[in-house]
Amino acid sequence: MAGNVFGEIFKVVTWGESHGPAIGAVIDGCPPLLQLSEEIIQKDLDKRKPGGGQPGATPRKEPDKIQILSGVFEGLTTGTPISLVIWNQDAKSKSYEHLKDIFRPGHGDYTYFKKYGIRDYRGGGRSSGRETAARVAAGAVAQQILNAYNINILAFTRALAGVTATKIDIETINRTPFLCPDSEACILMEESLRAIREKGDSAGGIVEVRVKNCPPGLGEPVFDKLDAELARALMSIGAVKSVEIGRGVEAAKLTGSQNNDEITPYGFITNNSGGILGGISNGDEIVCRVAVKPIPSISIKQKTINTKNEPADIIVYGRHDSSAIPRIVPVCQAMVRLTIADHLLRQITLKGFNKIEL
Amino acid sequence: MAGNVFGEIFKVVTWGESHGPAIGAVIDGCPPLLQLSEEIIQKDLDKRKPGGGQPGATPRKEPDKIQILSGVFEGLTTGTPISLVIWNQDAKSKSYEHLKDIFRPGHGDYTYFKKYGIRDYRGGGRSSGRETAARVAAGAVAQQILNAYNINILAFTRALAGVTATKIDIETINRTPFLCPDSEACILMEESLRAIREKGDSAGGIVEVRVKNCPPGLGEPVFDKLDAELARALMSIGAVKSVEIGRGVEAAKLTGSQNNDEITPYGFITNNSGGILGGISNGDEIVCRVAVKPIPSISIKQKTINTKNEPADIIVYGRHDSSAIPRIVPVCQAMVRLTIADHLLRQITLKGFNKIEL
Amino acid sequence: MAGNVFGEIFKVVTWGESHGPAIGAVIDGCPPLLQLSEEIIQKDLDKRKPGGGQPGATPRKEPDKIQILSGVFEGLTTGTPISLVIWNQDAKSKSYEHLKDIFRPGHGDYTYFKKYGIRDYRGGGRSSGRETAARVAAGAVAQQILNAYNINILAFTRALAGVTATKIDIETINRTPFLCPDSEACILMEESLRAIREKGDSAGGIVEVRVKNCPPGLGEPVFDKLDAELARALMSIGAVKSVEIGRGVEAAKLTGSQNNDEITPYGFITNNSGGILGGISNGDEIVCRVAVKPIPSISIKQKTINTKNEPADIIVYGRHDSSAIPRIVPVCQAMVRLTIADHLLRQITLKGFNKIEL
Amino acid sequence: MAGNVFGEIFKVVTWGESHGPAIGAVIDGCPPLLQLSEEIIQKDLDKRKPGGGQPGATPRKEPDKIQILSGVFEGLTTGTPISLVIWNQDAKSKSYEHLKDIFRPGHGDYTYFKKYGIRDYRGGGRSSGRETAARVAAGAVAQQILNAYNINILAFTRALAGVTATKIDIETINRTPFLCPDSEACILMEESLRAIREKGDSAGGIVEVRVKNCPPGLGEPVFDKLDAELARALMSIGAVKSVEIGRGVEAAKLTGSQNNDEITPYGFITNNSGGILGGISNGDEIVCRVAVKPIPSISIKQKTINTKNEPADIIVYGRHDSSAIPRIVPVCQAMVRLTIADHLLRQITLKGFNKIEL
Repeated sequence: MAGNVFGEIFKVVTWGESHGPAIGAVIDGCPPLLQLSEEIIQKDLDKRKPGGGQPGATPRKEPDKIQILSGVFEGLTTGTPISLVIWNQDAKSKSYEHLKDIFRPGHGDYTYFKKYGIRDYRGGGRSSGRETAARVAAGAVAQQILNAYNINILAFTRALAGVTATKIDIETINRTPFLCPDSEACILMEESLRAIREKGDSAGGIVEVRVKNCPPGLGEPVFDKLDAELARALMSIGAVKSVEIGRGVEAAKLTGSQNNDEITPYGFITNNSGGILGGISNGDEIVCRVAVKPIPSISIKQKTINTKNEPADIIVYGRHDSSAIPRIVPVCQAMVRLTIADHLLRQITLKGFNKIEL
Repeated sequence: MAGNVFGEIFKVVTWGESHGPAIGAVIDGCPPLLQLSEEIIQKDLDKRKPGGGQPGATPRKEPDKIQILSGVFEGLTTGTPISLVIWNQDAKSKSYEHLKDIFRPGHGDYTYFKKYGIRDYRGGGRSSGRETAARVAAGAVAQQILNAYNINILAFTRALAGVTATKIDIETINRTPFLCPDSEACILMEESLRAIREKGDSAGGIVEVRVKNCPPGLGEPVFDKLDAELARALMSIGAVKSVEIGRGVEAAKLTGSQNNDEITPYGFITNNSGGILGGISNGDEIVCRVAVKPIPSISIKQKTINTKNEPADIIVYGRHDSSAIPRIVPVCQAMVRLTIADHLLRQITLKGFNKIEL
Repeated sequence: MAGNVFGEIFKVVTWGESHGPAIGAVIDGCPPLLQLSEEIIQKDLDKRKPGGGQPGATPRKEPDKIQILSGVFEGLTTGTPISLVIWNQDAKSKSYEHLKDIFRPGHGDYTYFKKYGIRDYRGGGRSSGRETAARVAAGAVAQQILNAYNINILAFTRALAGVTATKIDIETINRTPFLCPDSEACILMEESLRAIREKGDSAGGIVEVRVKNCPPGLGEPVFDKLDAELARALMSIGAVKSVEIGRGVEAAKLTGSQNNDEITPYGFITNNSGGILGGISNGDEIVCRVAVKPIPSISIKQKTINTKNEPADIIVYGRHDSSAIPRIVPVCQAMVRLTIADHLLRQITLKGFNKIEL
Repeated sequence: MAGNVFGEIFKVVTWGESHGPAIGAVIDGCPPLLQLSEEIIQKDLDKRKPGGGQPGATPRKEPDKIQILSGVFEGLTTGTPISLVIWNQDAKSKSYEHLKDIFRPGHGDYTYFKKYGIRDYRGGGRSSGRETAARVAAGAVAQQILNAYNINILAFTRALAGVTATKIDIETINRTPFLCPDSEACILMEESLRAIREKGDSAGGIVEVRVKNCPPGLGEPVFDKLDAELARALMSIGAVKSVEIGRGVEAAKLTGSQNNDEITPYGFITNNSGGILGGISNGDEIVCRVAVKPIPSISIKQKTINTKNEPADIIVYGRHDSSAIPRIVPVCQAMVRLTIADHLLRQITLKGFNKIEL
């Protein structure tokens, strides 16, 4: 109801504010007997961490150290809730005092205030991107489920700061600072982002997520179609403004004979559908793309209002990335992991009936 | 879990197959004391009905007569479940016999078979667009809730068959056969669609939905953000392949200073956000756009397989529209109505605490 | 949220008022490929029907004919929602006009009015026992799931009108008008009930439900324990005022050494726990008992108030049973069927992981 | 689905094992702007703590210090999830090594093993009564909601070790070690429990919970009736074997004229219904009673089996209470608080429509 719960069988609750003592997640519904450790989760969490060699990175250095508080016994999940916590260590609250009574354009400041009548203004509070660290941690647990069925989720930067990757070389992704599969495009992205940053501005881009080896049958018509659930999952990430499945927006311009994926005994000839038909996975690669808006925190003066509805000017200083990319890439991956893991378990329910000895 | 339930407080379950005895919906959670009658729902249902003067329309003539079986007493809702039924009268099952063992490309035939191990092949069964009539009926009930807060949902055709409407004249929408707000574009759409249909092919397009007078505060971070819920709602419509909020895909190319909506005491200067910030409505107009894929049923020969995984050719004859547009327009409107009504009630829960005498 | 939905995986929504056009249920989450027909459901529904040779029965004669509107194709479930409808044929609305402005003691009249500000006063509207026919119909579908695991639910009258059955002979149950397993007690029940009825009064009793052959492992700690879910399921039946599991209330008086069920390699020596330990079935017979209050509609004058809060006297004439027993017996059985079927599917989800080929 | 979530609007997830690093709860759906502090919660938590002057108390000394990790800002709730944690400090895991492969009668050992295929055997792991500390903490937050409507939940010991309290003097409750409202009965309880404990045995009892000043209208027919939800809430406490509402089991023996509560303009004359009619609160005091089974850990030799299904004898040494009473009393109170708070918010949703300015 209040919106912090995700999933039906593999259910995740996240909690925590940017500058509170900690953030975390509780997972209810993880199957027992899965291998799980803090190391496994930490590895994924490190991919989201700020800084590294990435240009345009926030200088805030958080170790983002994961701690498992329950649900794991002697290295195995027990079927009971898994409580994950990440302590906030580098939270400089004082640097946010000046934002106490003013609404930053493009942020949730104004709407949180209107909705709740109160807001933790320090670093965005609950609306901070920091909350997504808990999603990444939960996503790492979900991946342990997917591993049992050899399902893998690939996420990468398709476009950044006006530059689009056209060559998709999977091996390249982790070699580039922007998690981009096209090394030449990556150089141009770097240049473009630097120019934008030097003006005190920020940039948007496109992230693509692909599900490899997804079995057919996942997704629950009519409302919990797999594409609908992926759309919700990805759109629930703060900066995302669109979700496309397969050909996405382009499909609007095609004719049926262009867009239909013909079928052979050895599979679909094309994959315009993005691996989903009638809201159910068809066994082909699932392809999603999301548009990521430019980070709203910019060092350029903007018009705004304060909590008394008086006009004001604002320049958002502080430690900010110039783009949500690439840090948002593992977040997109995590949300798709959570979605696919949940639907995998839902389909197991369906298929298991009459085949499982209890 | 099984996917046929939508909403948290205003909860809708739809049921029914294209060629079964009936389709319908049950609404659990409609507030009491709302005016409701079959006439009110029928009016909306008629907008979705096939035929009329629209070019490219299916000749199937269904009266789609709504019947209220419960939850309304002496013209008012009682707070108990509202059961709605629409009888299937023009279902020619025999004309689908030839599709019994073959999978139509672009349809859910293959995936339903893989998921459930059985499918009602008559007219697509549950995956038929016919199911959306139940959504439109439920959406008409949701609108009665929205009326209490003067919220109105506008939906129209933004693009069809390669032609885009550039002039948005609201008065024009209901005058054109395609529910298009640009009369000149509509003429070109008609021509383009006719040419496509004459080749036995079909066309896609874009539908835009706008929420007028939505109060700020709707949407539940972090997972049930209003944009996330709208994305799920709209993507759950069979033919939809993308959902955009505000500037949508374009936002990826903008900088922060271009994309941020500056704020004044009299409102936001621009509306690139599409009326949603941090997952919560900001009081501005909510703007969504969806890409509608071309209808997969075409009279052009395509490669496919049968249930024995043997190759086959298929030409889909029968009564089919050449585009899901315009019939999908009131369906998009209905899904947004359901989403906004549900979130309105969720926000009333929040705001009502301590203010309501029980 | 609004309370008319039951179950997580096997989800049932019931709808309908006593004197509306129909009542019904929609089941979302029934596995595909189960045999199902109107005959199967009708057989169970007939056990709840009024009249028959039972003493104290209401003279209202409803055929209670079930109709399946969706989700079944060629005799098998398809995995899509199953819509069930029972038309109200013998609803004499006029006989309830005099109850329009007055609250019957012991009924939900007063509270429905206070909650919703409106009520369908005809025959109790939604609060009528008639609603339970939809539960029995849904329970018959649930039993088809339980059949696959040879699970059987036995329900019978343990006490009525002050007389308690002490001999439990299963064969006797269906031979007696009160569904009582003790033929001698049944004669005394009949006498006692007749005496009560002749005074214009009504009687309560106790119903016992036993789950035969339930596999261990069902129930989801900590809140969805199997006993907790059974308690909710049974207490949701209008007339039920207590739920006991195993020794129930008596357990309060025992010591640990008396109450603990010792374990041997061949099973538990005793069954004081009623087949549930730590909220999870232990493989032994599950035993529940519920107290059924006397029917509040009596022909004896009672004090009450009207909708204007003025004092009034009331004598409830009309077609009424003198006890909810035995008609409530199949309703208790149905609620346990729904609960066990849902938890069976939940456990299949858990056990199916890693064992099911998708 | 996996059972660790409670509530619809005021949603609580508990997590943690008896001998893991910590236990805790996350609350999603607490309204904003409520006063909340660790002190407020601690006060309630202290009532559940072991030891004190109570006879029969476990010597385990846990400070059970609550920590709020999110959702509260400057002393007020913010509408975001409230994360509560209690660190386990006095967990002697080694003392449980001998229980690794053996199932204690009356405990969840056997069923957890059968359900999950793995169990944290240390102190009962997840099935330990320790989990209920998280419920009490969450219940303290729920009480802050109830305070706004002056609703108060009273819980006390009605019976213990075969002795029943007949005099209900509310002032006495907190003066007695057993939270018993009858000082004379309390002395007899003490004697009876001592005798039982000296034999190495344990005792059960009865807890009563009363809701003071509950407004009419709470409860959601037909499945989420208030009594049904209370039954589930209370039965979800490990040791509870029955739930009664109002006259409860006794109602089975009454006639309608005895059991009906007549109504006057000034309220109900009697309260046999226990404050609930048709599943909805009627404004009268809500009365529930639960039977608490004797603690299964006893120092008397019992027959059992090990994980290899071999026979074994067991004597459960260690730090154990001789009765779940009185420590279970605040747990029962907490579960009723959670239930009433959730239904209060649900009713606010209903009543708030059309009255709330958004």
